[in-house]
Amino acid sequence: MSEVRFQISVSLDGYAAGPNQSEQDPIGIGGMELHRWVFELRSWRASQGLDGGIGGPSDDVIAEAQTNVGATVMGRNMFGGGPGPWADDPPWNGWWGDEPPFHTPVFVLTQHAREPLELQGGTTFVFVTDGIEAAVERAREAAGERDVSIGGGASTIQQALRAGLVDRFELHLVPILLGDGERLFVDVDDLALEQERVLEAPGVTHLRYRVVR
Amino acid sequence: MSEVRFQISVSLDGYAAGPNQSEQDPIGIGGMELHRWVFELRSWRASQGLDGGIGGPSDDVIAEAQTNVGATVMGRNMFGGGPGPWADDPPWNGWWGDEPPFHTPVFVLTQHAREPLELQGGTTFVFVTDGIEAAVERAREAAGERDVSIGGGASTIQQALRAGLVDRFELHLVPILLGDGERLFVDVDDLALEQERVLEAPGVTHLRYRVVR
Repeated sequence: MSEVRFQISVSLDGYAAGPNQSEQDPIGIGGMELHRWVFELRSWRASQGLDGGIGGPSDDVIAEAQTNVGATVMGRNMFGGGPGPWADDPPWNGWWGDEPPFHTPVFVLTQHAREPLELQGGTTFVFVTDGIEAAVERAREAAGERDVSIGGGASTIQQALRAGLVDRFELHLVPILLGDGERLFVDVDDLALEQERVLEAPGVTHLRYRVVR
Repeated sequence: MSEVRFQISVSLDGYAAGPNQSEQDPIGIGGMELHRWVFELRSWRASQGLDGGIGGPSDDVIAEAQTNVGATVMGRNMFGGGPGPWADDPPWNGWWGDEPPFHTPVFVLTQHAREPLELQGGTTFVFVTDGIEAAVERAREAAGERDVSIGGGASTIQQALRAGLVDRFELHLVPILLGDGERLFVDVDDLALEQERVLEAPGVTHLRYRVVR
């Protein structure tokens, strides 16, 4: 059964990115600390085409998150930055390189219509100009029996939550306090949640919730 | 070894109380949902002089939190409400009743000097007008070898964290989204934390952290 889900690292004070995000600092000051736990994991390294890495509960969680994803939805910033690099001439292909780690269709929310961008390894970026519901609908069709992953960032996740499109999500709660930045949950309520699974791991806790209908 | 610690329920979006707190609604709209998991626990009921209740991981956590506390520090709102009931004539004794559940000295942060208020069962409210550091220092002296509990609310906890006075804390993370209210962590950073213990329980996850010096 296909589900719409997301997973994201969040600080103990609720930030999914640090303050002063910029092209040079896409996850803001201190934001990289949110992701430090992931870089040494075997499953994450494999997704980047790298060998080695360690196992354990966090590795299992990431391997699971990467399994059965048929399509991804993301915001334009996650595709690749601010107004400058969005230019068509020369075309900007995002900051994921020639072979992005998605290997599926990726539906990018934007106000700029553009032809789909097919890159190596099965990733095709499809640009959607008519909002989150349309993007998720198209992702569902593309994913078939597999799941739709809301890739982020926080604003795109909030849009999906507010529109009632999310079935479940997993937070990777990192024991840091960023003090400022981009909060994950802003103006999201009226959702009933069920705590589904909690996994303690070195330097992070994985918390999975289901949206109750 | 005496430690300064706090424990508090917090929503998944980081609120320790709902919006529109008032005398009638001291933890704000929806705020009571933060505490529902605690009312049926044996240890909590015992602290209120009630029989019965259930055991389990949450019960163990609350029993542990109540053990070895030698003094408590709290804000004036937690003692008892807004400017009105704070009046001296007739004296207002807070909303904890004739026999409050603390059974130790309780240091109340306030701008209004007042003689200590000794109630039944060993609770004496001591009113401190010279700030969080002085309050914690006096609580430490009173607690001796036992711990100092920062009772709350969020503002008092933030003051203690910013002043570097907290050794460890436990969050009771409740799977609700309040959308608005009083955030637990505001303008708190520059603290290095270590994840110490994670316990999954029905309807809540208990997360314990230590401040690293």
